[in-house]
Amino acid sequence: MGNSPKVLIMMARDSDLPVMQEAADILAKFGVPYEIRISSAHRSPARTMTLASEAAGRGIRIIIAGAGMAAHLAGVVAAKTTLPVIGVPMPGGALNGVDALYSTVQMPAGIPVATMAIGKAGAMNAGLLCVQILALNDELLLRALNDYRSAMDKDVEARDAALQGQD
Amino acid sequence: MGNSPKVLIMMARDSDLPVMQEAADILAKFGVPYEIRISSAHRSPARTMTLASEAAGRGIRIIIAGAGMAAHLAGVVAAKTTLPVIGVPMPGGALNGVDALYSTVQMPAGIPVATMAIGKAGAMNAGLLCVQILALNDELLLRALNDYRSAMDKDVEARDAALQGQD
Amino acid sequence: MGNSPKVLIMMARDSDLPVMQEAADILAKFGVPYEIRISSAHRSPARTMTLASEAAGRGIRIIIAGAGMAAHLAGVVAAKTTLPVIGVPMPGGALNGVDALYSTVQMPAGIPVATMAIGKAGAMNAGLLCVQILALNDELLLRALNDYRSAMDKDVEARDAALQGQD
Amino acid sequence: MGNSPKVLIMMARDSDLPVMQEAADILAKFGVPYEIRISSAHRSPARTMTLASEAAGRGIRIIIAGAGMAAHLAGVVAAKTTLPVIGVPMPGGALNGVDALYSTVQMPAGIPVATMAIGKAGAMNAGLLCVQILALNDELLLRALNDYRSAMDKDVEARDAALQGQD
Amino acid sequence: MGNSPKVLIMMARDSDLPVMQEAADILAKFGVPYEIRISSAHRSPARTMTLASEAAGRGIRIIIAGAGMAAHLAGVVAAKTTLPVIGVPMPGGALNGVDALYSTVQMPAGIPVATMAIGKAGAMNAGLLCVQILALNDELLLRALNDYRSAMDKDVEARDAALQGQD
Amino acid sequence: MGNSPKVLIMMARDSDLPVMQEAADILAKFGVPYEIRISSAHRSPARTMTLASEAAGRGIRIIIAGAGMAAHLAGVVAAKTTLPVIGVPMPGGALNGVDALYSTVQMPAGIPVATMAIGKAGAMNAGLLCVQILALNDELLLRALNDYRSAMDKDVEARDAALQGQD
Amino acid sequence: MGNSPKVLIMMARDSDLPVMQEAADILAKFGVPYEIRISSAHRSPARTMTLASEAAGRGIRIIIAGAGMAAHLAGVVAAKTTLPVIGVPMPGGALNGVDALYSTVQMPAGIPVATMAIGKAGAMNAGLLCVQILALNDELLLRALNDYRSAMDKDVEARDAALQGQD
Amino acid sequence: MGNSPKVLIMMARDSDLPVMQEAADILAKFGVPYEIRISSAHRSPARTMTLASEAAGRGIRIIIAGAGMAAHLAGVVAAKTTLPVIGVPMPGGALNGVDALYSTVQMPAGIPVATMAIGKAGAMNAGLLCVQILALNDELLLRALNDYRSAMDKDVEARDAALQGQD
Repeated sequence: MGNSPKVLIMMARDSDLPVMQEAADILAKFGVPYEIRISSAHRSPARTMTLASEAAGRGIRIIIAGAGMAAHLAGVVAAKTTLPVIGVPMPGGALNGVDALYSTVQMPAGIPVATMAIGKAGAMNAGLLCVQILALNDELLLRALNDYRSAMDKDVEARDAALQGQD
Repeated sequence: MGNSPKVLIMMARDSDLPVMQEAADILAKFGVPYEIRISSAHRSPARTMTLASEAAGRGIRIIIAGAGMAAHLAGVVAAKTTLPVIGVPMPGGALNGVDALYSTVQMPAGIPVATMAIGKAGAMNAGLLCVQILALNDELLLRALNDYRSAMDKDVEARDAALQGQD
Repeated sequence: MGNSPKVLIMMARDSDLPVMQEAADILAKFGVPYEIRISSAHRSPARTMTLASEAAGRGIRIIIAGAGMAAHLAGVVAAKTTLPVIGVPMPGGALNGVDALYSTVQMPAGIPVATMAIGKAGAMNAGLLCVQILALNDELLLRALNDYRSAMDKDVEARDAALQGQD
Repeated sequence: MGNSPKVLIMMARDSDLPVMQEAADILAKFGVPYEIRISSAHRSPARTMTLASEAAGRGIRIIIAGAGMAAHLAGVVAAKTTLPVIGVPMPGGALNGVDALYSTVQMPAGIPVATMAIGKAGAMNAGLLCVQILALNDELLLRALNDYRSAMDKDVEARDAALQGQD
Repeated sequence: MGNSPKVLIMMARDSDLPVMQEAADILAKFGVPYEIRISSAHRSPARTMTLASEAAGRGIRIIIAGAGMAAHLAGVVAAKTTLPVIGVPMPGGALNGVDALYSTVQMPAGIPVATMAIGKAGAMNAGLLCVQILALNDELLLRALNDYRSAMDKDVEARDAALQGQD
Repeated sequence: MGNSPKVLIMMARDSDLPVMQEAADILAKFGVPYEIRISSAHRSPARTMTLASEAAGRGIRIIIAGAGMAAHLAGVVAAKTTLPVIGVPMPGGALNGVDALYSTVQMPAGIPVATMAIGKAGAMNAGLLCVQILALNDELLLRALNDYRSAMDKDVEARDAALQGQD
Repeated sequence: MGNSPKVLIMMARDSDLPVMQEAADILAKFGVPYEIRISSAHRSPARTMTLASEAAGRGIRIIIAGAGMAAHLAGVVAAKTTLPVIGVPMPGGALNGVDALYSTVQMPAGIPVATMAIGKAGAMNAGLLCVQILALNDELLLRALNDYRSAMDKDVEARDAALQGQD
Repeated sequence: MGNSPKVLIMMARDSDLPVMQEAADILAKFGVPYEIRISSAHRSPARTMTLASEAAGRGIRIIIAGAGMAAHLAGVVAAKTTLPVIGVPMPGGALNGVDALYSTVQMPAGIPVATMAIGKAGAMNAGLLCVQILALNDELLLRALNDYRSAMDKDVEARDAALQGQD
């Protein structure tokens, strides 16, 4: 895998970074080059469109979009690219992310957004889904992914063992 | 008021017409010229953007946008114009419009969408809100609005009287 | 634009002020004169009615009403005026504003309330919607609004640039 | 108990009658004189206020108010009288009465509305609550109420017996 | 009004006291004698039943019942008395009172519970509803209630005046 | 297993029978004797209490209770017995069973109700849970249960095979 | 009752321990031997399956499974055993346990999960339900359970008495 | 693209076929070979595991899993493969798919499920997301996808033109 970014992580505001960093950390861990951009479907619509429509030409393979409240970012981006778009609903606000979840997942027929859980778990899984998609054509990545799964399994086992030791 | 449309009614699909017709009917009743256009934030994003950004130049004063599920139409339109944008959440789908309501009303700071009730009552009220806004600078319209209010009041009174007569 | 208030901001209790101040701040920023009044649909119904029905005569063009829980203020005010009424659902209470949202937005046909998002984002957007409505007949305000939109866009761009610099 | 109405049943529209009739039927069954009036908090606010504020003077002891969607009727009436006000949320609309429930029950401190279940069960219970309140000072009504409770108990017993016989 | 308690305030656990105290405070303010009892529909069902069924005989006129989660207290009490029963849903727990609201208000036909808002506002209104019911046959209480309403109105007016002074 | 009922199925009204019959059918299929009784926590509280408190003495091992809306039946029964109580929330009413679910499952600490899914699937699973509990001390029943599981697995396999054949 | 564990408490992650400890504490109080294991339906599916399918053979009689968000643990375990499985939805995450509740309780027909309330109350009740099931065939446990119920009742009584003393 | 299936569509029961057929139809339209299998996470867990873990070895690139209520199928499958897994929540049941949505989308960190809208729109989009993923490495598919997008855009344009013609 070269150095040019394969995944574009977009977020509506810089305050979303602590959540979306989870996606970036996973990509970094697997050595997938990525780019993080701040752009809003509402406050900077033209730049958002341009980022979306030019992504494929720049070598981007997958776009992750995180937004909160009436989260339109993922849907607006998905309408301007045929790349797979993964949506991460942000928590916060009075409805704490149910609004963002419905605004992201309930896409009408024709333009899919692959929606993750609300918040950090969802952002981390967005990163992992990128790895899973890219691993379809990358043996090394697939091996790394299998190792990651084994490590998760072993971590559960270790915590269980630690708990047994405590008793 | 001239003949060129003052209100642009947009909807995501022609199956939304029976709901959005309520807005058109109110505008027709008050003699406000309007235009109904079908355009989708997701399936025809470029045309939607153009319709929104060129509306003011064509003499449009207010835009009504109706959409369902992860309803992005009103928000996407509002991002491309400084005209007031009124959003009507469509009922239907598995969540029956709660998704459309949250996707329309929970707009982040910076880009307002004046959100109405889900469905026909909301569409009718969208038409009335247009009339109320235009009446701010149109004495005739204001008088017609006051007459409409009186007629509503009298209608309630008549129904009450009919009920008393029934007993 | 003269000095007499063009926008009347109403709220049910003084504890709502920190939220509703967002609306006032936007109006101040755009030089739109406004008035803030405390009046409750439930605890001071007569004064609320009077404030609503006399508003137009005093030169008010738009009313913003913020209330929480079973938020009746915006609807009660809207029933007593033909001015556009904008509702801001307050967060807080056990349901944290879903009750106020439904009580504000689900208006029956005949009396529209232009509903904003729950809380501060909604209050700020209520102020902006006033500016958008008033700008329909005020070239200077329209120019200021376009500048505001450009500034928002540039702010997003600057934050994105700052983020790129950080990496 | 004399012939002048003791209970005022108010509803926002005549289409609510099939639900609110349940309240009337209970009152009729217990011989409590009542009056049914159609008046809307939004479309006929002045008449609603007058009906509410003059009720006590006419000998009304309790007001039942049924309304749907952003149901403001019960709250608006309660603000204009010190009589006990019972609210019945109407089903129907896209949210099927959750909106009406929240708009009726989540009254802020100071103005109570005694809220019943959504729909026919709630309307029937509104009638029964009137009887329970009036029975506090009416021995005959209390006896009738106790008989009604016994009859309900016996009806359950009879249905249980019928079911056992079926097996 | 004599010294024997007219209102019985029941709550499921002593941790509910800070909420239910609002009801007691209102009753004390109006000079209505009351009694507070802790009893659970689930953990002490027999005592709960006895408290409910013996209340009328002891001179109790109204019962207020506060409970959280699957709040059964008000319904269970209402099933054992013909006195008016007022239910106060407690906030708290993972669902923060929506569970308690539905469990209190959605009573099936036959046994009404007069349901208040979730939490302190609801408890305070429960106290006020008792006063409103008792005032139906108590001129002094009615006068006190009217004074209380006027004081609320004046308090709103004073807060509004204070705000105007601040500007 | 003898002929005296081992499972008591209670329901609040005979209209719940089509749902609760699913539980009975499963018990019949496994040869577990059962009894169906109609009794309401609200309309026949004393009989409900007696049925609950006398169940263990009559040889009942498990109680299934189905109720809708503010479903108190399972909780009230559970408070009067130490037998395992299984709750089935009924669908229907304006909230279609969410109210019944919360009223059944959100039991406070001390009195458990084993809650099943809303409606027929839940009633059927209530029957199966009884079989699973009774099979802890009944080898024949355990074998029948294992056969039932195998048959479910085979049924899925057969439907899959049929689908493959169709293509 | 011997020393080998009769109840298997499973949880998806060690951070769930403070909640699930409530179940363990109840079992310890009643002298029911138990085992706590950490295993995830998603991160360690094979170990989870093995724990579930081998439980009965090791003398386990009941399994308690606690998990949060899209809580699959209880359902996955229930599919691999005919032992009764009790599900405890974890609070936390953006939806604070509503997701875990629906994912646990809405099991399709064929595989029951006895679902408890969200969080600590639910975990404690899971422990109590185990005791109630085991007490069906254990006279000593039944006596202890009856004592526990009496103690709860007395505790309510004592708190009520303390409150009366305070006044 | 060869003839061996690239996409595995799994569903919990054959009654889900009318919904999941939407995914199959899209794949057929784009010439992507697929396989539809019925297998349940609960009623046939072993076969489900086997289907999931053997899919990659058989040349499957993506798995679509549709399930309702406490929808565990997608999550269980995702735990046994590193292939991308797309989840489609089924409508139906008392909660009409909100339960399935939460059970599918709220996956904990580590195992992503790409969640689509509830019902047919979601199933159709699941098919499209497969095409978008496969098109990352298939120029012909990418061209077909771009044609599909253009056709959608033209279809909206044609419907808009038809509407204009009607007026």
